[in-house]
Amino acid sequence: MNQTTDKATMHMSLDELREFAGRILLENGLSAAQVPGVAETLVAGERDGCGAHGIYRLLSAVRSMRLGKINRHASPTVTEPGPSLVRVDGDRGFAQLAFEAGRPLLVEKARHFGIAALALNRCVHFAALWPEVEAIASENLVAIAMTSNHAWVAPAGGTQPLFGTNPIAFGWPRPEQEPFVFDFATSAIARGELELHRRGGRQLPPGCGIDRDGNPTTDPAAIAAGAMLPFGGHKGSALALMVELLAGPLIGDLTSKESLLMDDGAGAAPIGGELILAIDRSRFSDTPASADQAEALFQQIVGQGARLPSQRRYIARKRSLAEGVHIPAALYEELAGLGR
Amino acid sequence: MNQTTDKATMHMSLDELREFAGRILLENGLSAAQVPGVAETLVAGERDGCGAHGIYRLLSAVRSMRLGKINRHASPTVTEPGPSLVRVDGDRGFAQLAFEAGRPLLVEKARHFGIAALALNRCVHFAALWPEVEAIASENLVAIAMTSNHAWVAPAGGTQPLFGTNPIAFGWPRPEQEPFVFDFATSAIARGELELHRRGGRQLPPGCGIDRDGNPTTDPAAIAAGAMLPFGGHKGSALALMVELLAGPLIGDLTSKESLLMDDGAGAAPIGGELILAIDRSRFSDTPASADQAEALFQQIVGQGARLPSQRRYIARKRSLAEGVHIPAALYEELAGLGR
Repeated sequence: MNQTTDKATMHMSLDELREFAGRILLENGLSAAQVPGVAETLVAGERDGCGAHGIYRLLSAVRSMRLGKINRHASPTVTEPGPSLVRVDGDRGFAQLAFEAGRPLLVEKARHFGIAALALNRCVHFAALWPEVEAIASENLVAIAMTSNHAWVAPAGGTQPLFGTNPIAFGWPRPEQEPFVFDFATSAIARGELELHRRGGRQLPPGCGIDRDGNPTTDPAAIAAGAMLPFGGHKGSALALMVELLAGPLIGDLTSKESLLMDDGAGAAPIGGELILAIDRSRFSDTPASADQAEALFQQIVGQGARLPSQRRYIARKRSLAEGVHIPAALYEELAGLGR
Repeated sequence: MNQTTDKATMHMSLDELREFAGRILLENGLSAAQVPGVAETLVAGERDGCGAHGIYRLLSAVRSMRLGKINRHASPTVTEPGPSLVRVDGDRGFAQLAFEAGRPLLVEKARHFGIAALALNRCVHFAALWPEVEAIASENLVAIAMTSNHAWVAPAGGTQPLFGTNPIAFGWPRPEQEPFVFDFATSAIARGELELHRRGGRQLPPGCGIDRDGNPTTDPAAIAAGAMLPFGGHKGSALALMVELLAGPLIGDLTSKESLLMDDGAGAAPIGGELILAIDRSRFSDTPASADQAEALFQQIVGQGARLPSQRRYIARKRSLAEGVHIPAALYEELAGLGR
């Protein structure tokens, strides 16, 4: 790694970044079984140009470990609640190891039965969902994933936080290229954006949240004390509730409100459930014609000047794989200080 | 039935309305096998206070039949593309009979395997999706349904219509009461709202669409000539694309653009695919605690003055079951004139 001419950033290859993240996690007592998945997720965020889901998240991961909110030696248990269902008890570890534990069986079941579901229980979520749907889509399966987190978002028409930022992710395999993937919070903005605006003292656009009296505001501190709002009004609110139900009560896990209560003001990463569905494309229709149909849709979007959600990430990925990434020097120092 | 003191409406019991709709469908040559499902859907819309999805839709149903776009004697075929998958070829008839043909096997498979999917192919869609998810939820299964239609909606950031209004519906069973259900278009407004505003010469709120040059407009006629927009910006647009993929290429059926091309300017109801997922709640967690969790969520929404999506429909339903419904007299006359 080299300090670049721009003194504010450090240049690192992805291998260097992976090793750096892994070392800090190990030094903080995370088991060797959990380290690779967590490190890879951090690297993937940085690699794909998603700084808010990149190496920066190591801060909250380490903080949550030190708060004792994460089982550093978690040992996930895989069960089969039904022929097409997989369940992994994450044992209060990071979601990555639980996902890796359940993934082969999910893929096998989706191929065998045509559709299958994987429930991750008692897992700590601190990153994006797209690595999961991308992994499933790389098996030529269609993937849908969702998870709840901490109760920060009021329902449309309400004033009290109840939902998490409850992201939904989707992956669609494409022939001989990266899958089509989207992954977005059902809140108007991600929690990370709220934090970044609060740190930077910048106002948010209208529609992102309300203050503690329920009045619309663009002040991130007032929203943090009040509630964030769903994207897209009552429709986004309905989706947030769907995620809340499917990643919580359906699979016997916490709601976002219960997760926040359990956190008890510590400010650790949320613990709870995640639901991942996988559908075998080849069962209904895997003809060249159906692949062409999907590709035509993508082309008609890009061709009219609109963007595919995953487009920008894949461009950044290509560049990062060739050239490495630039980490803010201050962040690098802060992270390096997290080692023992 | 009675003409009410308000001369502008007709008062009818739900049985009278069902018989009335059924007679008009039969007189227009729809097979006896298809009539009950279609009539029931029209009655359900009216009963639940959704005028735009009620008996008014009989106009477009009959029009589509007369245009030869619907197979009045459709005979759906049920197949099993995988142990957890059901497929119904609707034979170009209304979706209702195809759904009824596939529903028992979908329910059986969801119970047996834990999760199952039903693909409806080559079906004509002219109504809402909530009757389908409500039917699945009444079996104590969680349901998700989606369908594409005609390419009326431009992707976020684009200018050309590509997506249908692509609704998503969700059903969640509740103990001893109607299920929680939502059903919304991924477009900013439903196509019916656009039509009603155009007929009434009323402007739409900002954000609903663009004119043929891609400029934002509130004029419904200009939007009809240009494109509608997704709800919630790029997130709603991503969901619309997901629906487009899952109800089209995934299951070997038409995209909204292909459906519109096939319509060839006739203005008939869209023909295409629909995907319905069913998940067995009892497999992961069917304890009283998990039911309480979900009920607590619903209570916390209603308790803070927000509304559950299905709430208004169920209130209207209760009233309609007791008191019948009021049909605009002009609409009644127009519908009565559709008989032979």
